[in-house]
Amino acid sequence: MRVLSSQRVTYFFSADSKAAYRVADGERVKVQTRDCFSGKVKTPGNLFEDVSMGDVNPATGPIAVEGLSAGQTLCVAIERIRCGRKGVIMCSPNLGVLSEDVRRPRTRILRIEDGKAGFSDDLSIDLNPHVGVIGVSPAEGRFPTFHPGDHGGNMDTVDACEGSKVYLPAFVDGGMLAMGDVHAAMGDGEVCGTGLETSAEVTVRLSKSEDLILKRPMIETPKAWLTFAAAKTLDMAARLATEDMVKFIQSKHGTDFEEAYMLASLIGNLRISQVVDPLMAVRMSISKRYL
Amino acid sequence: MRVLSSQRVTYFFSADSKAAYRVADGERVKVQTRDCFSGKVKTPGNLFEDVSMGDVNPATGPIAVEGLSAGQTLCVAIERIRCGRKGVIMCSPNLGVLSEDVRRPRTRILRIEDGKAGFSDDLSIDLNPHVGVIGVSPAEGRFPTFHPGDHGGNMDTVDACEGSKVYLPAFVDGGMLAMGDVHAAMGDGEVCGTGLETSAEVTVRLSKSEDLILKRPMIETPKAWLTFAAAKTLDMAARLATEDMVKFIQSKHGTDFEEAYMLASLIGNLRISQVVDPLMAVRMSISKRYL
Repeated sequence: MRVLSSQRVTYFFSADSKAAYRVADGERVKVQTRDCFSGKVKTPGNLFEDVSMGDVNPATGPIAVEGLSAGQTLCVAIERIRCGRKGVIMCSPNLGVLSEDVRRPRTRILRIEDGKAGFSDDLSIDLNPHVGVIGVSPAEGRFPTFHPGDHGGNMDTVDACEGSKVYLPAFVDGGMLAMGDVHAAMGDGEVCGTGLETSAEVTVRLSKSEDLILKRPMIETPKAWLTFAAAKTLDMAARLATEDMVKFIQSKHGTDFEEAYMLASLIGNLRISQVVDPLMAVRMSISKRYL
Repeated sequence: MRVLSSQRVTYFFSADSKAAYRVADGERVKVQTRDCFSGKVKTPGNLFEDVSMGDVNPATGPIAVEGLSAGQTLCVAIERIRCGRKGVIMCSPNLGVLSEDVRRPRTRILRIEDGKAGFSDDLSIDLNPHVGVIGVSPAEGRFPTFHPGDHGGNMDTVDACEGSKVYLPAFVDGGMLAMGDVHAAMGDGEVCGTGLETSAEVTVRLSKSEDLILKRPMIETPKAWLTFAAAKTLDMAARLATEDMVKFIQSKHGTDFEEAYMLASLIGNLRISQVVDPLMAVRMSISKRYL
């Protein structure tokens, strides 16, 4: 299997980006990713205030998928995520939902071992590794890799994990996938502004999806389908994620809008992905059992 | 066990409300509840537009708990929820996050049987019964029972289910609990504006909590602790629920704010309860394993 090195990264999802790598439709590759600080946070003395925003969220790529055309859908099947041996978490008066309550910035570096991270002597945290940044080139303009959007990007969604498929709308030929910002652990919300930030090696299979035509990303887990939307407020993102899910239910069941809307209310779960990136992100999931 | 009949209901959580029932500290009672339409929706021909808002969310009570004083905390241990035999779901151009997309209002009445509700011939829905309205008198003024707030009220939170304890701050002596609006099924968000609305009989044990002093409701499930907040926007509610959880972690672990905040980011799950009541409601959960 080819290894795509994290020597070649981008800090933007850009309409005019050039491919760093090219893969065949259906090819499996190992994508090496740097942590979200480009590996520059090495000790607890390195605070958020010392990080240059230009170093935030390096995403390995862009990766062009051969045969994938604008208007089609890219499927990124995440087969394995192997995290690094340490993870960084930070808080700062300039970061997170309770930023103004932080008196002094702090950086913690946790050791990652045997599926756990040691937070303190008597508290170890179960890992839930997932890919924070996973996106494609937008139709026009460019977004920093710390922005989420219709192109994916900084999705910070725990379901982008081993065993899941992330579907992204290709806005340009080849899609131009880039990924990085793996979190070894994070809860819904990422409230303090970071998860447990780590370098990683992510095994993915990249292919053209024949079935879905999308405006925004979707995720398929072994048990559920999820819509995803980012917007200026959680309320706006919630609306968009619901809209997409109702349409998805309609397409699967052939029902009218009203039936699908009521079904979404009964069995759809509208959940927060993150509340700290420049845009807020919400997803809606529905069990495959109902589709 | 005493049965508290749904003949005595209130449509307001009011600072000056008088007790309909009195129970001893630690008493178990069966609380009968009407559905959220006061039982007036009987056929698919009864649309949301025909419902008087004065009939919405009858809450059985108020129930005064003896010995509970203002400033203390009421614990409502939900031991059993027995749903009625039918559930109502509605959509309307005047209801829910996608209200403007609804062309014609619709009412569906589903049969509830053996833990499931039949949505269509080939689709039956698993139930997750929970108490939608559960609250106490506020310190001042009054709130309709379809409002959520610091007093609880229309919490519409799926974790207010069998096996959970809902903790409510008592703002007046006796607390003046009222409950109703049981949903046989609902997903996070309640996006179309209703769950599967049903009458029910809810067995609860009411007692004074000796351990918690609260500003807003909390929920304890067998596996997790949850904070809860309602506000004008999801973003504001998310902030409050996070704030409460960080303080809760601090009180349990004796750590400073910054450690608790980072821990909340790694292992706390910030989730949407509902997006359709006049205020938006968000909760944050943390596994008991970490406390």
